[in-house]
Amino acid sequence: MPGLLSNTIELIKPLDKGAMAEARLRQDTLTKPQGSLGRLEELSIKLAGIQGKPIPQIRHKAIITMVGDHGVVAEGVSAYPQEVTAQMVYNFLRGGAGINVLAHHVGARIIIVDIGVATDLKPDPQLLSRKIGYGTHNMCLGPAMTHEQAVTSIEAGIEVVAAELAKGLDIVGTGDMGIGNTTASSAICAAMTGKPVAGVVGRGTGINDEQLAHKIEVIKRALAVNRPDPNQPLDVLAKLGGFEIGGLVGVMLAAAAYRIPVVIDGFISGAAALIATALAPGLRDFLIAAHVSAEAGHRVLLRHLGLKPLLDLGMRLGEGTGAVLGIFLAEAAARILAEMSTFGEAGVSERNRPEN
Amino acid sequence: MPGLLSNTIELIKPLDKGAMAEARLRQDTLTKPQGSLGRLEELSIKLAGIQGKPIPQIRHKAIITMVGDHGVVAEGVSAYPQEVTAQMVYNFLRGGAGINVLAHHVGARIIIVDIGVATDLKPDPQLLSRKIGYGTHNMCLGPAMTHEQAVTSIEAGIEVVAAELAKGLDIVGTGDMGIGNTTASSAICAAMTGKPVAGVVGRGTGINDEQLAHKIEVIKRALAVNRPDPNQPLDVLAKLGGFEIGGLVGVMLAAAAYRIPVVIDGFISGAAALIATALAPGLRDFLIAAHVSAEAGHRVLLRHLGLKPLLDLGMRLGEGTGAVLGIFLAEAAARILAEMSTFGEAGVSERNRPEN
Repeated sequence: MPGLLSNTIELIKPLDKGAMAEARLRQDTLTKPQGSLGRLEELSIKLAGIQGKPIPQIRHKAIITMVGDHGVVAEGVSAYPQEVTAQMVYNFLRGGAGINVLAHHVGARIIIVDIGVATDLKPDPQLLSRKIGYGTHNMCLGPAMTHEQAVTSIEAGIEVVAAELAKGLDIVGTGDMGIGNTTASSAICAAMTGKPVAGVVGRGTGINDEQLAHKIEVIKRALAVNRPDPNQPLDVLAKLGGFEIGGLVGVMLAAAAYRIPVVIDGFISGAAALIATALAPGLRDFLIAAHVSAEAGHRVLLRHLGLKPLLDLGMRLGEGTGAVLGIFLAEAAARILAEMSTFGEAGVSERNRPEN
Repeated sequence: MPGLLSNTIELIKPLDKGAMAEARLRQDTLTKPQGSLGRLEELSIKLAGIQGKPIPQIRHKAIITMVGDHGVVAEGVSAYPQEVTAQMVYNFLRGGAGINVLAHHVGARIIIVDIGVATDLKPDPQLLSRKIGYGTHNMCLGPAMTHEQAVTSIEAGIEVVAAELAKGLDIVGTGDMGIGNTTASSAICAAMTGKPVAGVVGRGTGINDEQLAHKIEVIKRALAVNRPDPNQPLDVLAKLGGFEIGGLVGVMLAAAAYRIPVVIDGFISGAAALIATALAPGLRDFLIAAHVSAEAGHRVLLRHLGLKPLLDLGMRLGEGTGAVLGIFLAEAAARILAEMSTFGEAGVSERNRPEN
């Protein structure tokens, strides 16, 4: 494994148990019954462990949205034409997409990365160009990318995170755009979890029953042609992946290496998390699952990852729209821990007698 | 039924079907697969129907937190002493409570109302005094309040909302504080839904098994002594209620009358919603259930109301802490509808062919 990738993986250390213990202690002195803020309390303690601070801070928030195209669209797996990928990049840059609206609402910046759109995009100061190819190859005919491209896509993600550190980065959310990428993600999910294809395929942007059956058949063909080895996550990524999925693997690894919490979005981010946690099992503790999407395979892979989603709102847009809502909740959790008064400070009486 | 209450109920009209149809039409032209923002899309359409605007707006946000004491605490039903109710009011006023932190995070103002704290509170410009009594009577010995007090508590809630209109009020969240009020709410829930007491009682601020069994017994006694009539919601409120529960009934009715969406908080707000919707069935459409709390009866009453909670985070603090997170999601939903570009505006291609 080349230098940047293996070095990044080596930097991933366990959660800071001391910071977590201090955070838990403080939660229990705040003016509320112990545990009464439920998962927000748990989340604040996890954030403490990730950041290595008894009182974690979430001020600088970013969504990194990786964009790439997929050769498998030639098989007719999506309800939308491939040019939508590039068109949506321009929509992101003009601020008109779902992720723009929600990131603005939450106060998060967005980093849009062209890691493999099928056409040349007009240069834009807001657009990061890390293009590895003009879309992947059709995975039904052979590997979607070379082993080298898979590594380069991950390293691109690592470098994007590294470049953001100077601007301040307390939490990062993952996002994706790429027509055809639920097909790639379903293939990855089936390969990595061993579940039957039909159980991890959904309607993506909105295909009908006939198209769904076809999508399942296409994924089965891709798996038969490529025979990916689940014990070789880079092999799975190269054979089935998208460049944006590789980029998100890199984002997750780098964030964990720098002790930055990673809020994962929907199904595509989840597929990246399967690869990333197979490369670095310790990464798992740095991941926060924002939501469970309407895409069937998402629930399967979250269970496989042992992550419990914060939200279940039937969303399935991608782009980072779920992640950014998760960032809002993480910031809420951190603020609770930092800003609430303790019983002592507020002069509020504690409970009558200890719980049994 | 006296003037203000019956007039308010009469003002509650159905949702604006025309605005909802326009909102739905617009949702389907935004640059995302139709339905891909799931419940946020549904919520935006509901908000359109409530506000009577094709593009609803959520700018002025408020949490109304009603505070009252409960005579039933004499039975030893809570883990905390009664003086905590007053102490928490001072904590609210100094900004140290959970609701302060979360309301600040979301940009909502908080209105704290003393509607029945057991002691005199120091005057404070931020504290609204609408005290109806120094706590309710012990419902195990007879009605918690008189019929007149029940009506007055509701009217106080109505007047609080009316007084807020001039400051701008696009959405309101309900909140509560009152040691002992999960006991009152469980009693109301049992009376209004007909469910067995044991199924609608929880651990409140955190009682143990023995205390839980005692709490159930206390509620059964209160129901046996008072024999509340579920077809007479004012009778139920008077016999079992708290002043703050009555106040929240008024908040809900007034908000619906003024076409303001009401985000309901946890179990206590839910008990108020049971009374309020029994008084005015049309109110139901104006309610948004923020979350389902860890308190057992909350799930029961939400099902009875036919409301699906947005969040399930194991929270059980009250104060409006769940409601304010729901307000954040409602604002997100409204912003999506207002701020996203349409396919036409963004020059993004629409789907290849219509769905079957």
